[in-house]
Amino acid sequence: MGRVTVRRRVMRLRDGAVDHAPDALAGEEPMEIRVNGRPVTVTMRTPGNDFDLAVGFLVSEGVVHAREDVAAVRYCAGATADGSNTYNVVDVALAHGVPVPETSLERNFYTTSSCGLCGKASLDAVRTRSAWSVAEDPMRLGTDVLLSLPDRLREAQRVFDRTGGLHAAGLFTAAGDLLAVREDVGRHNAVDKVIGGAAVNGQLPARGTVLMVSGRASFELVQKAVMAGIPALAAVSAPSSLAADLAADAGLTLVGFLRGSSMNVYAGADRLR
Amino acid sequence: MGRVTVRRRVMRLRDGAVDHAPDALAGEEPMEIRVNGRPVTVTMRTPGNDFDLAVGFLVSEGVVHAREDVAAVRYCAGATADGSNTYNVVDVALAHGVPVPETSLERNFYTTSSCGLCGKASLDAVRTRSAWSVAEDPMRLGTDVLLSLPDRLREAQRVFDRTGGLHAAGLFTAAGDLLAVREDVGRHNAVDKVIGGAAVNGQLPARGTVLMVSGRASFELVQKAVMAGIPALAAVSAPSSLAADLAADAGLTLVGFLRGSSMNVYAGADRLR
Repeated sequence: MGRVTVRRRVMRLRDGAVDHAPDALAGEEPMEIRVNGRPVTVTMRTPGNDFDLAVGFLVSEGVVHAREDVAAVRYCAGATADGSNTYNVVDVALAHGVPVPETSLERNFYTTSSCGLCGKASLDAVRTRSAWSVAEDPMRLGTDVLLSLPDRLREAQRVFDRTGGLHAAGLFTAAGDLLAVREDVGRHNAVDKVIGGAAVNGQLPARGTVLMVSGRASFELVQKAVMAGIPALAAVSAPSSLAADLAADAGLTLVGFLRGSSMNVYAGADRLR
Repeated sequence: MGRVTVRRRVMRLRDGAVDHAPDALAGEEPMEIRVNGRPVTVTMRTPGNDFDLAVGFLVSEGVVHAREDVAAVRYCAGATADGSNTYNVVDVALAHGVPVPETSLERNFYTTSSCGLCGKASLDAVRTRSAWSVAEDPMRLGTDVLLSLPDRLREAQRVFDRTGGLHAAGLFTAAGDLLAVREDVGRHNAVDKVIGGAAVNGQLPARGTVLMVSGRASFELVQKAVMAGIPALAAVSAPSSLAADLAADAGLTLVGFLRGSSMNVYAGADRLR
């Protein structure tokens, strides 16, 4: 596709000296996700693994639970004035009998009919939509394996990140073996691409795995792990309060500030050894 | 409000030793934004400056251009079962004659009626909606001032960030004086809170100012600066390709990797001295 990185000429200042040089920037383009031809969301993403991104988003939102729920994924082509395909509109055809989401997914997920929107409503929404329980996953995780994940993620990432502008998400086994790594300008997209790839490969629920992310752990990243059946989420940086609440509620192991020889465990510490 | 940080007990591992201690996490709660009583979006945000967040979001989306466009902002109360207010639903009443957005703002902004969604469509959408031109702003910026902004932002931020989980956005004059700083679990929200505060104070367009953000510069952050009339955006980390495209297109000065004694200038270098 050639749009993962884009070269641009930049002016660089270093200790008072000025030069001009080409620089590689992380590619960013809008992508519209459609379900059975109807638009449900637009996300700003780095092109690449677009079908995984679309399927992963639908897993996170509780529309798709397994490979069998998806009949086909395709780029929507031909409606531009010159008939060209921008590869920025992806249509997911659901399998016969899979319920089509009623309204815009982004909004539907959180909103309630009342004025009482709160963190608890968000936790309840995940509980209602999740097809499996990560609390029941018997996986045990060595802290030595956890401590090795940031380096393993960075190593896998270094191969194709020359921009400094990409978030990374990696899926690992409990033994620390890398199953998949994806990068994107959007943190959520990197995770959706990993989860969508697992869905397409028939690997959901992703029992016995750990999801490692390069940044912080928000509520929505914990939600995505839970919806994919991933029992542990580790982040280089801090979690939010609602991320920790959801992890505790769902039985997910949540590790933050995973750096060097240290980590903080916010939920599910019983899974560690 | 007391929800900007939330204390939780965590298990800490340091060089093989384990202890349990309380830790401060960044607060995260869903907030629904309504316009004239109709829901338009839900964002996961750190509670605080909620009215600024709502108004700033509407400035970014081109619905509100000035203080006079807003008749009132209030928390929507009383619809929960027990009649309590969760302070998570904010309703913005537009002034008489201000056009109400037709559909969900998040989607409306990017989508086109065709399959030809592309980066250029996103640039065009900002150009169409912007009420003023940042290209015409005669501001000049000293590189010495720019180089001082990361420290100034961190200093302002250190006062209330004990969590490591908050993104920061600061608005500065061309002389480097801090006008406002806001923190949030969401990068976009920190910027919307800064811009909404400026709008409420009658300071839009925010000519002659620089917006400094703690993370990366995405398309949407450049979009927000342009919509608020801010002529320069500086980021500690990398911009995306579409962020640089929009900055060049709109005449905004875009600086990335602003650290120590160095920076990269991706657009609008003619404004620097």
